[in-house]
Amino acid sequence: MERFVGELLARAGELARSQGLPCQVVLGGSAARGTWLAGDHDIDIFLCVPEHRELEEAMAIGRQLVLEHEERYAEHPYVHASLGGFDLDIVPCFSISDPSHLRSAVDRTPFHTRYVAGRIRGLEDQVLLLKAFMKGIGVYGSELRTGGFSGYLTELLVLKYGSFAAVLEASASWRPGLVIDLENHGSAIHTQPLVVVDPVDPRRNVAAALTLDRFAQFIGAARQFMAAPHERFFFPAPAEPLKDGELVRALQARKTMIIVVEFRPPDLVEDIIYPQLQKAQASIRSLLDREGFSVLRSGGNVSGQWGWLLFELLVWELPGVKKHPGPPVWEGQHLDSFLQEDRLILSGPYIEEGRAVVEVLRKYRRPDDLLRDRLGSLSLGHHLSPSIRSSFVLYQGWEILSIQSQDFRLFLSRYLSLRAWPAAQD
Amino acid sequence: MERFVGELLARAGELARSQGLPCQVVLGGSAARGTWLAGDHDIDIFLCVPEHRELEEAMAIGRQLVLEHEERYAEHPYVHASLGGFDLDIVPCFSISDPSHLRSAVDRTPFHTRYVAGRIRGLEDQVLLLKAFMKGIGVYGSELRTGGFSGYLTELLVLKYGSFAAVLEASASWRPGLVIDLENHGSAIHTQPLVVVDPVDPRRNVAAALTLDRFAQFIGAARQFMAAPHERFFFPAPAEPLKDGELVRALQARKTMIIVVEFRPPDLVEDIIYPQLQKAQASIRSLLDREGFSVLRSGGNVSGQWGWLLFELLVWELPGVKKHPGPPVWEGQHLDSFLQEDRLILSGPYIEEGRAVVEVLRKYRRPDDLLRDRLGSLSLGHHLSPSIRSSFVLYQGWEILSIQSQDFRLFLSRYLSLRAWPAAQD
Repeated sequence: MERFVGELLARAGELARSQGLPCQVVLGGSAARGTWLAGDHDIDIFLCVPEHRELEEAMAIGRQLVLEHEERYAEHPYVHASLGGFDLDIVPCFSISDPSHLRSAVDRTPFHTRYVAGRIRGLEDQVLLLKAFMKGIGVYGSELRTGGFSGYLTELLVLKYGSFAAVLEASASWRPGLVIDLENHGSAIHTQPLVVVDPVDPRRNVAAALTLDRFAQFIGAARQFMAAPHERFFFPAPAEPLKDGELVRALQARKTMIIVVEFRPPDLVEDIIYPQLQKAQASIRSLLDREGFSVLRSGGNVSGQWGWLLFELLVWELPGVKKHPGPPVWEGQHLDSFLQEDRLILSGPYIEEGRAVVEVLRKYRRPDDLLRDRLGSLSLGHHLSPSIRSSFVLYQGWEILSIQSQDFRLFLSRYLSLRAWPAAQD
Repeated sequence: MERFVGELLARAGELARSQGLPCQVVLGGSAARGTWLAGDHDIDIFLCVPEHRELEEAMAIGRQLVLEHEERYAEHPYVHASLGGFDLDIVPCFSISDPSHLRSAVDRTPFHTRYVAGRIRGLEDQVLLLKAFMKGIGVYGSELRTGGFSGYLTELLVLKYGSFAAVLEASASWRPGLVIDLENHGSAIHTQPLVVVDPVDPRRNVAAALTLDRFAQFIGAARQFMAAPHERFFFPAPAEPLKDGELVRALQARKTMIIVVEFRPPDLVEDIIYPQLQKAQASIRSLLDREGFSVLRSGGNVSGQWGWLLFELLVWELPGVKKHPGPPVWEGQHLDSFLQEDRLILSGPYIEEGRAVVEVLRKYRRPDDLLRDRLGSLSLGHHLSPSIRSSFVLYQGWEILSIQSQDFRLFLSRYLSLRAWPAAQD
């Protein structure tokens, strides 16, 4: 790996010189700090240009560095390539002198590398243990899908507490609202569950992407691990696509109704798709709940050409009658409109908590009727809405056995065996 | 009626004189004020003794006045009898000079009679109309079961607004929090939906017993009546016990599950039983809701030897799996106990909103199993709890057809046709 990276850095430097671009070529992330987790495949190379030059000049270097590449876009464009078994990102940024005056978030990275590299010497193994533990339980990575701990965050935690074991022990007294401020900068006010003040940019919370649930999951897993250490925390049993027999047995035990919305997802990076998968689930759950179909849990997955939204229902058949609450009785105009609606009334109007209420015939007695009618009018995320609306297929109950995609079966397996930490018997 | 009452008053006076008891014999309530609603059967006679004498001396007069009687108890004992087609209450009280220094609530009644009698001349018909309207729609009476307007309250409303029609018109702008203060006493702070300061005792809210829903019902019914006046508001179609065929058709349309708890009620006055019927319903609804059985509506009735609690369910069969939320993960001791509970886990533990959650096998998949097991441990009201626990019978779905009691069928009829005001087509 080191030789491969060394060659890349050297060639990038040559290309810049030959084109008259003053450019610092900086290896970013864990590879530069000796905290590179085996099995990771990510190499980040930053091409830092002076502020009076254009990022596009650095992009040109990136394109020439690896001919077979694609251009991706985060805050700015960058070059992505698969090369020698690695996922390579070549990221243009500006050389700046003060990280509190950034042009873009990536400009901060060289400062992070410098801060950590100078202090982590001798603690690299502790960082690797912490990363491997977090990866094993599924809280490693600050991308939106995971909402976990970034590599930089794990490094700062080890710098704060001194070792892998010390971080785990400390977590026993962590609560949401915890503030860690290594350089005693004093922090701006953040509302995230964990605030780690960035040593190189005090206004920034390094743990901004960490969700409450991943924060809690780490605390819980650390407690389980300290009570009964086991290698499964680092090397969990890999999830396998669920076989027909396993799926049948799970459905027989749970006796719920699983509904799957299958669709063709748009071709977008995970950090854009994932929040929309969450939004789509929330919209559909709220529709189902409003109409009286109680949802136990839901899940969403996009994998290549297919996307799935899954809803597990506790209630999927409702009676003919439905309670329809109206306005407070003293709002006369509203009351008149409510009473004039054209419908078959089974009971009422009667009064409940000051409101007029009627019991009417229910329109949707089954969730599939509801979804077929109303899915198209829900807000399912900017890019997902059109994809889902244009063509979705609804599967329910035993019908989901007919979805043969191994990606779907893997998604189902993870959905059903969802665990915050390994089981004792694993 | 007048002659009958006159004779009673005279005889009571004679009895008091013959026994040397200084006693004012006062006709109370509407009979004394010319606002006596035809069809009413209540006559209240107050025997007012000086404060240095004993109420028991007046009770003795009452007992002799009507030999066939029973003794009842509210704040103090009183004599009740059915005589000549009337329900007669003979109530001992103290003659006091200032109604703000009462010995008991009944001592206030002569002051009410005096206040109204002196002012209502010429408006008696307006009071009768208002009472009849309120009785017709079901908001007349301050007993707990109705939670409506007392006779004294209707009289004060007519004094305030001047006529039946004016009260209805005024109600279009009524809102919860309304204060009516005829004598500009300035009121103590009350939290009831309607506050009518008692002209003879400013600390008291004459409308204290009026519930928000009966207040709203009057406002709504007044609006409907003014838009389309009809005698049905005064003379509603009498409720008839539901016939088998009507019950079958209602159940077929609603497609809900009706569960009835039948029990032997204790022999107590309605004002004691009724709040306990409400409490019992609330306890059972909350148990059903907690376990996932969604309740559309409930009702309760006591009639002679039998009592019934009715629950109409939207959901009455649940899947095998149940979500069981645990403590926040950072509460380590609680987490340990939660994880050590002995149970079959279908999914989890996973994290939701910072809490550990497991999905386990559900214990109660049907409401009848739940109620048979747990009804005995619920708090169902001081006197009702032991009655219900000692022997209850559970009916569900079509089984309720087998309850032949006409009182039950009348209760069912009222439950199903519940209306805040008459329908246009009635």
